[in-house]
Amino acid sequence: MANIVRLALAQINPIVGNLDYNYKKIADTIAKAKAKGANIVAFTELVLTGYPPEDLVLLPSFVQHNLDLTYSLAEESRDIFLVFGFIDLDQDTYNAAAVAYNGKLIYRYHKVFLPNYGVFDEERYFRRGTAAPIFKIGPVSIGVSICEDIWHPVGPANVQAYHGAQLLININGSPFHAQKQRWREAMLATRASDTGCFIAYVNMVGAQDELVFDGSSVVFSPEGELIARAKSFEEDLLIVDLDLDESTRVRLRDTRLRQESEIRLLEDIKAEVMELEGSLNKLNALEIKSRIEKEQEKLEEIYNALVLGTRDYARKNGFSKAVLGLSGGIDSSLSAAIAVDALGPQNVIGVRMPSRFTSQASLDDAKELADNLGIELRDISIEPAFCAFLEMLKQWLPQTGSSVAIENIQPRIRATILWTLSNQEGLLLLTTGNKSEIATGYCTLGGDTTGGFAVIKDIPKTLVYELAAYRNSVAGRNIIPERVFTKPPSAELRENQKDEDSLPPYAVLDQILEEYVEHNKSALDIVKLGIDPAFVSRAIKLVDANEYKRRQSPIGIKITPRAFGKDRRMPVTNHYRGQQNL
Amino acid sequence: MANIVRLALAQINPIVGNLDYNYKKIADTIAKAKAKGANIVAFTELVLTGYPPEDLVLLPSFVQHNLDLTYSLAEESRDIFLVFGFIDLDQDTYNAAAVAYNGKLIYRYHKVFLPNYGVFDEERYFRRGTAAPIFKIGPVSIGVSICEDIWHPVGPANVQAYHGAQLLININGSPFHAQKQRWREAMLATRASDTGCFIAYVNMVGAQDELVFDGSSVVFSPEGELIARAKSFEEDLLIVDLDLDESTRVRLRDTRLRQESEIRLLEDIKAEVMELEGSLNKLNALEIKSRIEKEQEKLEEIYNALVLGTRDYARKNGFSKAVLGLSGGIDSSLSAAIAVDALGPQNVIGVRMPSRFTSQASLDDAKELADNLGIELRDISIEPAFCAFLEMLKQWLPQTGSSVAIENIQPRIRATILWTLSNQEGLLLLTTGNKSEIATGYCTLGGDTTGGFAVIKDIPKTLVYELAAYRNSVAGRNIIPERVFTKPPSAELRENQKDEDSLPPYAVLDQILEEYVEHNKSALDIVKLGIDPAFVSRAIKLVDANEYKRRQSPIGIKITPRAFGKDRRMPVTNHYRGQQNL
Repeated sequence: MANIVRLALAQINPIVGNLDYNYKKIADTIAKAKAKGANIVAFTELVLTGYPPEDLVLLPSFVQHNLDLTYSLAEESRDIFLVFGFIDLDQDTYNAAAVAYNGKLIYRYHKVFLPNYGVFDEERYFRRGTAAPIFKIGPVSIGVSICEDIWHPVGPANVQAYHGAQLLININGSPFHAQKQRWREAMLATRASDTGCFIAYVNMVGAQDELVFDGSSVVFSPEGELIARAKSFEEDLLIVDLDLDESTRVRLRDTRLRQESEIRLLEDIKAEVMELEGSLNKLNALEIKSRIEKEQEKLEEIYNALVLGTRDYARKNGFSKAVLGLSGGIDSSLSAAIAVDALGPQNVIGVRMPSRFTSQASLDDAKELADNLGIELRDISIEPAFCAFLEMLKQWLPQTGSSVAIENIQPRIRATILWTLSNQEGLLLLTTGNKSEIATGYCTLGGDTTGGFAVIKDIPKTLVYELAAYRNSVAGRNIIPERVFTKPPSAELRENQKDEDSLPPYAVLDQILEEYVEHNKSALDIVKLGIDPAFVSRAIKLVDANEYKRRQSPIGIKITPRAFGKDRRMPVTNHYRGQQNL
Repeated sequence: MANIVRLALAQINPIVGNLDYNYKKIADTIAKAKAKGANIVAFTELVLTGYPPEDLVLLPSFVQHNLDLTYSLAEESRDIFLVFGFIDLDQDTYNAAAVAYNGKLIYRYHKVFLPNYGVFDEERYFRRGTAAPIFKIGPVSIGVSICEDIWHPVGPANVQAYHGAQLLININGSPFHAQKQRWREAMLATRASDTGCFIAYVNMVGAQDELVFDGSSVVFSPEGELIARAKSFEEDLLIVDLDLDESTRVRLRDTRLRQESEIRLLEDIKAEVMELEGSLNKLNALEIKSRIEKEQEKLEEIYNALVLGTRDYARKNGFSKAVLGLSGGIDSSLSAAIAVDALGPQNVIGVRMPSRFTSQASLDDAKELADNLGIELRDISIEPAFCAFLEMLKQWLPQTGSSVAIENIQPRIRATILWTLSNQEGLLLLTTGNKSEIATGYCTLGGDTTGGFAVIKDIPKTLVYELAAYRNSVAGRNIIPERVFTKPPSAELRENQKDEDSLPPYAVLDQILEEYVEHNKSALDIVKLGIDPAFVSRAIKLVDANEYKRRQSPIGIKITPRAFGKDRRMPVTNHYRGQQNL
């Protein structure tokens, strides 16, 4: 007397704007799901357009093409219940889920909760929906919602559960940050046990500009148990067999649920119950299918996010090869390793660009790294250009000693060299600045901040070391040479320069930055954590003073809850110093 | 039997984040308004925090300091009815207007309509209000609302009019674009005659990052006539005497208004009528005060916006002096003239940076311009560095002929020179690229696109010529030399190079760009306007392909309805080509 359905969660990697490519990928995956005997297949949020489409949503031709393809895709729903994300247009635009069955588009669900915080701008593009559909096919009862809808404690899912839904399909484009998966799975477990429904959470995989999507689609039982998990950072088609009667059993048993369902739900969301012909539970289920892929550790998931982010940026923007400067330091070493894992060693070119201030150790470490990674290494001394600039500008520079202006000529020459190689050979220029540097402005406009893609832009220096060590541990040998970890960080722009001449020690700095940038704490709040007030004050002043540099940085991969970029929108012109008060 | 009040509209220039500076400026201006006998004084939207404060709104210390100062400012309302913008915090944050009277904060109005399109992100920061207050003081009845509230045909203003308001004070931070003032004044005339109320529209002046606010505060009579206008692009305190009985007279006379007022207004907005003690119409008005400043012509207002935008960016970011490259072309010539008008000739340094490809005419024209403007001119040939780079990179560059990579070395050397001067002397580096170049990517990353502030970023090339001619006409002589207008534009990066070798003629290109960028039209739409399909196709492909360059440009002044920047949020990774279809 089971009521078993076979569900396929299609975790694919679409490309923003490439409607035809996405269409074909979806259609092919529907065919695969059918071949595996699935009765239901669900794709991710705005999968047809790619996510997030940003101001493409404002183009009528774009929205219309997406609508045409939506109707066409719906025809692929013969013998399967199909859910996928698209942009609906009906007086206004909606972030929508198409529900198709028996070859017809039967419903267009409109996302109710539109995120407009952090990296999200959905109120800019979409009108909110007001209906919660429940699809009844024989003994099977399904609710559909989109991403943010399931994060709210009262929303469409509760309305659907109240009207008997056993399976809640929630389709997602949920941007990655480190350890988000745990938080998300805890929330989903709660929602499942709150509603007494199966929750099938299907999440996009792939990268789009500064965002990475990790996949890691999951299914939770009506008792809040994790019963299936797809791969992380890879495409996957997760097949799960569910006995939907379990939902009914839990809800009949659990008085708490019945009482909760009597609370008047959000008046704004009205239930729409549809009774459909046919059957979804025709499965001859002698063996219940499911799998739980392992959860990745923190360093593993961050590293994989960086690799996927770099690979997808290159691939989706037409680059097969990349170039970067190798200084022998930890930042460029880690960036090179990520580039190699993203693009292959044959597609990465490292360039050593020594000056009079470059140590032999730096040169040797860069060489050893390039050898270990198996990448091409080029050597271009910056001295001829450096001498030329010093001569050309001598009238305007101090006659004795150095200056920041003189120091900064060097990264600017290096940028010109790398851009020239990039232009000449069609190489993606990877910059190697870390979050600690970018936060404090310890970088040069027109120099190391200029490039095509900023690989470790959101990685604090201390985490750079951890990720480098992680990469070595995976290899089982020191791909990144031991000495790169132990020598004190230096920009080598003058004699005996050390980063810590200008900045607080990185271990302290990174703690301050996390509190200040990610948690919006003030200097006073941070000092209360026991950190040296002088360091706190210095670090925060630097962050406040350098917004203009960050505004001109290339985009890079977000891995923290609050990256520089769309996440943190500080004015450049900004006199507020209240966060610095002690 | 008149019911006369004296209204002061305080059009001041606040600084984002500088709460104490703004506080003092507001307090001083209240004193001035009192000295002029005003009974009512109104300041602009979020004047206390500066506008737009962006993610500063998310900082508890910032919001708290603003609240403390709000209560303190309210005490300045002895003998005057005071309205000013601040951030309210009451369970959530609101874009609010403080209403103070007799030394007390009597009401905190919450903006009802929160713009979340174009450059606006107000749904990111604020909860919407639900109340429309009416303040009755003897025979005087006043409504207060904020900016966007008055743009909607049914909103707080109608509710206030229905409950007897005679004067509607609307406080604004309305970003400038060319000719917006006409559109705005037409709308306000309509709202005044729709409601039968005086409308006092007070708008911010000054610049904040990419936005300029033009001031041009106005008052309309209940019959929709313009009766007062403040200056444009300058601080001003506009004093207007109003006989509020005119509102009553118009509304008793005009049956249409009475019928309209019986329509059930937005249920969400509830009226709150407050009866207050005292008197506002104690004016001994023997002579009715008012003035109407002249409306500026299109070129005049755009030029003034660029000057104010540049001056405020420099001033508010701590720069007194600026540097820019002078190529002898129209873009750098116009940019230099704007810089001089913004900062004074003694604060602008021009740099000629010739190469082997620079013509004598370019050198002469740059010299003549610098002489005419009275600015310092420096000469730094780029040849030594250019030769050095060609030698350093010869293994990686074509052995014969030129290449884009070789060409681009030159602007990159120039950027290094200018950055070095900027670093050494604390100069603001102004870039001189126009909108046509930035749209089509006819510019070099790490070269002419890198700098501190992009003066003419939103000015299409054809408008650059018009503005240059306008500047000469104002001077009554050719500040910008005649030949700069007549010679064909060239980047002079190779022999005999002309812009039109790579781009459609600018007259055509700019028309295409306006349709494509500002109006979101497709290639097909644009060809229907009678433009050569080959040019349309080429231009649009270039715009689509160069989002990554724009993302790294410095900020610059918005003067069109849709500038590159916060206004247009296109993904960098974007495969959509549907707009290119013919």
